Amino acid sequence: MKQLERGVFVFDSPPSINAFSAVVGKKEGEGPLSSYFDHIFTDTKLGQNTWEQAESRLQTEAVTRTLKKANCAPEDVSLLFAGDLLNQCIGSTYGLRDLGIPLFGLYGACSTMAESLVLASLMTASGAVSRALAVTSSHFCSAERQFRFPLEYGGVRTPTAQWTVTGAGAALVCAEGNGPYVAAVTAGRIRDLGITDVNNMGAAMAPAAADTIKRFLSATKTAPDDYDLILTGDLGFIGSSLLCELLRMEQFQIEPVHNDCGKMIFNRESQDVHAGGSGCGCSASVLCSYILSGLKSRRLHRVLFAATGALMSTTSIQQGESIPGISHAVLLTASKEDIPWNC
Amino acid sequence: MKQLERGVFVFDSPPSINAFSAVVGKKEGEGPLSSYFDHIFTDTKLGQNTWEQAESRLQTEAVTRTLKKANCAPEDVSLLFAGDLLNQCIGSTYGLRDLGIPLFGLYGACSTMAESLVLASLMTASGAVSRALAVTSSHFCSAERQFRFPLEYGGVRTPTAQWTVTGAGAALVCAEGNGPYVAAVTAGRIRDLGITDVNNMGAAMAPAAADTIKRFLSATKTAPDDYDLILTGDLGFIGSSLLCELLRMEQFQIEPVHNDCGKMIFNRESQDVHAGGSGCGCSASVLCSYILSGLKSRRLHRVLFAATGALMSTTSIQQGESIPGISHAVLLTASKEDIPWNC
Repeated sequence: MKQLERGVFVFDSPPSINAFSAVVGKKEGEGPLSSYFDHIFTDTKLGQNTWEQAESRLQTEAVTRTLKKANCAPEDVSLLFAGDLLNQCIGSTYGLRDLGIPLFGLYGACSTMAESLVLASLMTASGAVSRALAVTSSHFCSAERQFRFPLEYGGVRTPTAQWTVTGAGAALVCAEGNGPYVAAVTAGRIRDLGITDVNNMGAAMAPAAADTIKRFLSATKTAPDDYDLILTGDLGFIGSSLLCELLRMEQFQIEPVHNDCGKMIFNRESQDVHAGGSGCGCSASVLCSYILSGLKSRRLHRVLFAATGALMSTTSIQQGESIPGISHAVLLTASKEDIPWNC
Repeated sequence: MKQLERGVFVFDSPPSINAFSAVVGKKEGEGPLSSYFDHIFTDTKLGQNTWEQAESRLQTEAVTRTLKKANCAPEDVSLLFAGDLLNQCIGSTYGLRDLGIPLFGLYGACSTMAESLVLASLMTASGAVSRALAVTSSHFCSAERQFRFPLEYGGVRTPTAQWTVTGAGAALVCAEGNGPYVAAVTAGRIRDLGITDVNNMGAAMAPAAADTIKRFLSATKTAPDDYDLILTGDLGFIGSSLLCELLRMEQFQIEPVHNDCGKMIFNRESQDVHAGGSGCGCSASVLCSYILSGLKSRRLHRVLFAATGALMSTTSIQQGESIPGISHAVLLTASKEDIPWNC
């Protein structure tokens, strides 16, 4: 492992994602990625009593299905990196309580799938452990009532608002395996350009994505067109435009290879989600289905995955604070030969 | 680095804590550890507009003072591991926003000082980085209004209740240095014996501490009396008794060497805090003052620091869930010769 510059690491022995799984809710199951998900729950509560318990269940399902695919027991996994959007991360706590795997709880808001993958990869690539799990989730109903309004209120959403994805994704990062590989990771820095509109998260998070992508490309001396895809987490339509604009100002043209999980998971015309999908579960469920399966089948070769999080709370917003963003990134390749510096 | 058993790691090249700092509020400054803190803020709001901003400021102060002692700039630090108790960890976000250090946000409730130290040590011991910071905080007023009642309500506290510490601690973990050293770390597992009383956090967290201490002692083949001190984070008086009882049932007699930051930070007779201190800032401020300075001056030689966290939220409690606990642990030694397996 080598640190190219602060927080940017490349791996001599790239860890392999030997299994992954994504489970989602009904609306996500009606979107364009429907056929890629491991399971679609049509019951919003997944048979639980509350939405929060339903979200926990999403994490349980994502992890259990991932372990099963890898033919692993929970006892075979050394470390679990997990987090979610709920206060005190109860989605993870209750969803993972019974597994007995040593756990590092994370809070990276919607960047958590990338944050957990970065840490699981660092721990595996360093030789500290041979298997680590990364998992995260979000649920439309639990997020809506915690961050916005009671669902019963039926509040009207602004055009810049995004729709929290009901879903979870899990990935098993292993020291040995046949890929997809994690070739490099980048730890994000907080960026805050002063956005205070909680209905425009994409704008609040775009500067953090720009910072991380720029740091990664500069440190690795690669260019956007070295990648099949530069994939952000949940900037949505507005944040994605801003990201491309911010990077254009820095002489990086990412438009031709950029996409965003928040733009991909719903059908913009027929599903009425305004600026796109959002939430930890958005990037988690897209990554752990369509993207990782694409790398596995060699439909994709090199994907730079940079999920973003908005680190505010309802309290900080009420106190007039702006919304700081953060973005962690992971370079995924189909094979070791696909690693740009191995070519 | 070697993983002795799942989640228990010992280091061939133990990282060194080259600088540390603890800042606290007025009440903590009136307690028995008063002379060990770097700064005591007599203004509850630290000159800020809100308690949440005051808590953020505690983290800024702890980090800034730590960097100054080490003669380091923020640019010299590769990674920052931080978290706190506030919803969406805004204590860390706003307190660390301007530093520009790549950040991994954590949520381990009151175990966060240990969680952040474990991860900073793993990343440093693996050779990935040469310097990483660990920091956390809590504030009585921001915690009270988020988790319990408005302060103005003046609610009566039960005898098992603990008092959230206003304070923060930061530690700079370095690949090279003269100690104190981090000789080993243990990642915690969630333990839940079904406690539902939010006014008895000590009882909810004791099983997690017992699990982690037992796993550490078993894996390292050491006994309680190999240590000067087995120090828990904020079990307080009730949780500490339960911890000793749980471990006694497993044939580990830790009473003679056990203490708890929640028992140490306040004067039980004169400061009326019922079952003791609590909060992320409790173990952070005691560790980053009295304990680390004691190791530095060789007053202490071997300290097993196991902080505990209660992973519930107000929502999970209202929904009738029990309170899961977690405990991460760090073995600190004054010199490399003090490492038990180096004797």
